[in-house]
Amino acid sequence: MLPQLFISELEQIVGAAHVTGDETALLAYGQDGLKKPHPPDVVVLPGTTGEVAAVAELCHSGRVPLYVRGGGTGYSGGAVPLRGGVLLSMERFNRILEIDERNLLVVTEPNVVTGRLQEAVEAVGLFYPPDPASLDESVIGGNIAENAGGPRAFKYGTTRRYVLGLEVVLPNGEVIRTGSKAVKNVVGYDLTRLLVGSEGTLGIITQAVLRLIPKPPAHATLRATFGSVDAAVEAVNELIRARVVPATLELVDGECLAAVTRYLGGAELAPQGTAGLLILEVDGMAQAVVEEAQLVEAACRTAGATEVLRAATEDERRELWRVRRELSPALKTIATMKVNQDVVVPRGRVPELFRLVGELKREFGVAIPCFGHAGDGNIHVNIMVDAADADAVRRAHAAQRRLFEGVVGLEGSISGEHGIGYTKAPFLSLELSREAIALMKRVKRAFDPHDILNPGKIFQD
Amino acid sequence: MLPQLFISELEQIVGAAHVTGDETALLAYGQDGLKKPHPPDVVVLPGTTGEVAAVAELCHSGRVPLYVRGGGTGYSGGAVPLRGGVLLSMERFNRILEIDERNLLVVTEPNVVTGRLQEAVEAVGLFYPPDPASLDESVIGGNIAENAGGPRAFKYGTTRRYVLGLEVVLPNGEVIRTGSKAVKNVVGYDLTRLLVGSEGTLGIITQAVLRLIPKPPAHATLRATFGSVDAAVEAVNELIRARVVPATLELVDGECLAAVTRYLGGAELAPQGTAGLLILEVDGMAQAVVEEAQLVEAACRTAGATEVLRAATEDERRELWRVRRELSPALKTIATMKVNQDVVVPRGRVPELFRLVGELKREFGVAIPCFGHAGDGNIHVNIMVDAADADAVRRAHAAQRRLFEGVVGLEGSISGEHGIGYTKAPFLSLELSREAIALMKRVKRAFDPHDILNPGKIFQD
Repeated sequence: MLPQLFISELEQIVGAAHVTGDETALLAYGQDGLKKPHPPDVVVLPGTTGEVAAVAELCHSGRVPLYVRGGGTGYSGGAVPLRGGVLLSMERFNRILEIDERNLLVVTEPNVVTGRLQEAVEAVGLFYPPDPASLDESVIGGNIAENAGGPRAFKYGTTRRYVLGLEVVLPNGEVIRTGSKAVKNVVGYDLTRLLVGSEGTLGIITQAVLRLIPKPPAHATLRATFGSVDAAVEAVNELIRARVVPATLELVDGECLAAVTRYLGGAELAPQGTAGLLILEVDGMAQAVVEEAQLVEAACRTAGATEVLRAATEDERRELWRVRRELSPALKTIATMKVNQDVVVPRGRVPELFRLVGELKREFGVAIPCFGHAGDGNIHVNIMVDAADADAVRRAHAAQRRLFEGVVGLEGSISGEHGIGYTKAPFLSLELSREAIALMKRVKRAFDPHDILNPGKIFQD
Repeated sequence: MLPQLFISELEQIVGAAHVTGDETALLAYGQDGLKKPHPPDVVVLPGTTGEVAAVAELCHSGRVPLYVRGGGTGYSGGAVPLRGGVLLSMERFNRILEIDERNLLVVTEPNVVTGRLQEAVEAVGLFYPPDPASLDESVIGGNIAENAGGPRAFKYGTTRRYVLGLEVVLPNGEVIRTGSKAVKNVVGYDLTRLLVGSEGTLGIITQAVLRLIPKPPAHATLRATFGSVDAAVEAVNELIRARVVPATLELVDGECLAAVTRYLGGAELAPQGTAGLLILEVDGMAQAVVEEAQLVEAACRTAGATEVLRAATEDERRELWRVRRELSPALKTIATMKVNQDVVVPRGRVPELFRLVGELKREFGVAIPCFGHAGDGNIHVNIMVDAADADAVRRAHAAQRRLFEGVVGLEGSISGEHGIGYTKAPFLSLELSREAIALMKRVKRAFDPHDILNPGKIFQD
């Protein structure tokens, strides 16, 4: 419980209407995509950078935990107020401040929903490529804090590539600007990219300058099916040999496909025996798209595709994406608990990752449907069990640890998109050495000497 | 002077053959592209990561300045041993360890010459885009330390985009690995990108994993001339409206063109009255290149180009690049001293930057030929004076300060490529706030508590 005096000071900073201790609100603001609430002591809705700074300074002085929340769609607990204290919801920072067509950039407040920002810039012929699955709910600030990816990352990179500059409130209440509106900047340390992906532990983003690119004028969507994941991955290898860089290379495995088929009532969605399904999109100049789509089809056929479909209309495009779109609800029907991982391996080692998953299925007796971004080697590995079955849950966690160990053995990483948060903090040392973790903690102290900002995340105590 | 005992310990670590105090060597290793020597006390040529670590630990314990040198081509004094001590030359770290075609990456030691690495990966159909002008002499380690750019950065980004992982010796002698071979990795803080562009002040790079892309199968080169810089910049705006992203967009101003014309004996290189010359390259699939080249030509003509040439052969391509290639030697004939800046502004503000340069020419009575990367707004502004003319040198420095102030006023940055080193350290506070600089210094201390690694750089005492 926070002292009443502290609450009064918060109310003086942001106004009493923007401070709440209501139980329902605390519960709602206390959770993210994991749906495991840790209610804060109080929720504060600041309206200006100055208010954010004053709240930070107050928490810094009083050694009160301060958690920042954007869209609340994370899967690793990054925004969850694990130790109570103050939950700062950025929802009033919801304006796009400037779309600068001449300089290909947008200046925005952090709580603009990613999909809305994309629509706004596409309306003037520009393009903000990062497309996390959550883009209709997640916000730019959270995307930056987590370095969000998405299907288009293979060609266009993740959020990091698009952040030119930030306005940031430091844990002690100081306000700094990093980077600039220039696309190149080598003045001092790259604090901008250090903040990207720092999971809300180093600073509070109050404004961002994002780089845009011209919107590719044309695109084409294809779907190819294969008798094995290996064949699907070989198609990707063939594509790269043909020097094609698709915008999107989504892979869905046979177990996912079966789940969607059942979920949609049994109608056949792909040829019998499909164990790997690729959804591929190419984009760019109209002529290039025609040429690349032909190369994509040829590469898939060379790798043994059982069927290659190409969308001729926007409706057909939606149909080709259907399996992928229905995946999330379909998986929920398999089992009540999804231990949802986002591991990543060097692209060519995806077949080895799937062999590892096959071993885990057999050894631990759990369903593990997989899908993901084949071009990046970033695969969502979903260990599905009945939440009420304690033994199954234990087996799921054992399988998860083995998965992480295996991924590190394959020269990969235990998280490509979701971050560490608190859920993966126990596994950090599987991937990072003692010296590297100690250095990161020293960096954290350089920003936040009293560990008030998002405590309990990334690092275990 | 370092004690003999210390020199003996260095000799024990790397072998006496790899330690030298020879006067000529100290002078040669004591300078970079600025040609202003600050000799170290001793030059050490380590052969292994273990040796680098032992040397760092020794310097850390003894509080001896430790400077790391790659190709020695920098323009801001980044590798210069300003305070003497140990100069660690990485020249024995000169092997490409692995070109991994399947995973589109290369593992390399830091002292591989950038151009040689590019040739090696292009031989197998892959592409490492960063192309600093120094690429025939500069090395990958230095490129990473400075976040090197180059003409292709508009489409392909700078060095930062290609660094997936590093092996780094910390100032205390600890060895860490950052990142991985996976293209996505959000595990802990992004130390990889923090080290990129940190100018050798945070750690010593001993190995790097670099991302590659498929080599674009086709390219086209065009050259367009304009009666003003404004018209050339308008052509770039037109291009972007046409949604073309050229690989290269090099701008040369009229004063540069005149210098090259004189240098080459007066032969006419471009139409009379040319005040802005663009060299444009597009690359990609063959069909796309044809389409984009047409759009480039149309955009240039719409913006009022006086001439648009397109290379039909490799010889013609070389001819179109001639003005740019001869620029460096030609500028040397204007005056003996070049105060060489690499400022950057938001792309659309390049005309304002040129107006500022025009004012500086008039006000300070100095020649200021400019060229650079128009797509990035990154312009090389060369203030040319006679080194023996003390008043002219004073005026050049006054013009430089005004240039930096003006660039910051245009929402740009005082350095887009060369870094701060020691030459721009006095100007750091023009661009960064007191709070931001203090934070950077705390980050520096997190890596290097005794300030032994590259002291005197970035920050003024």
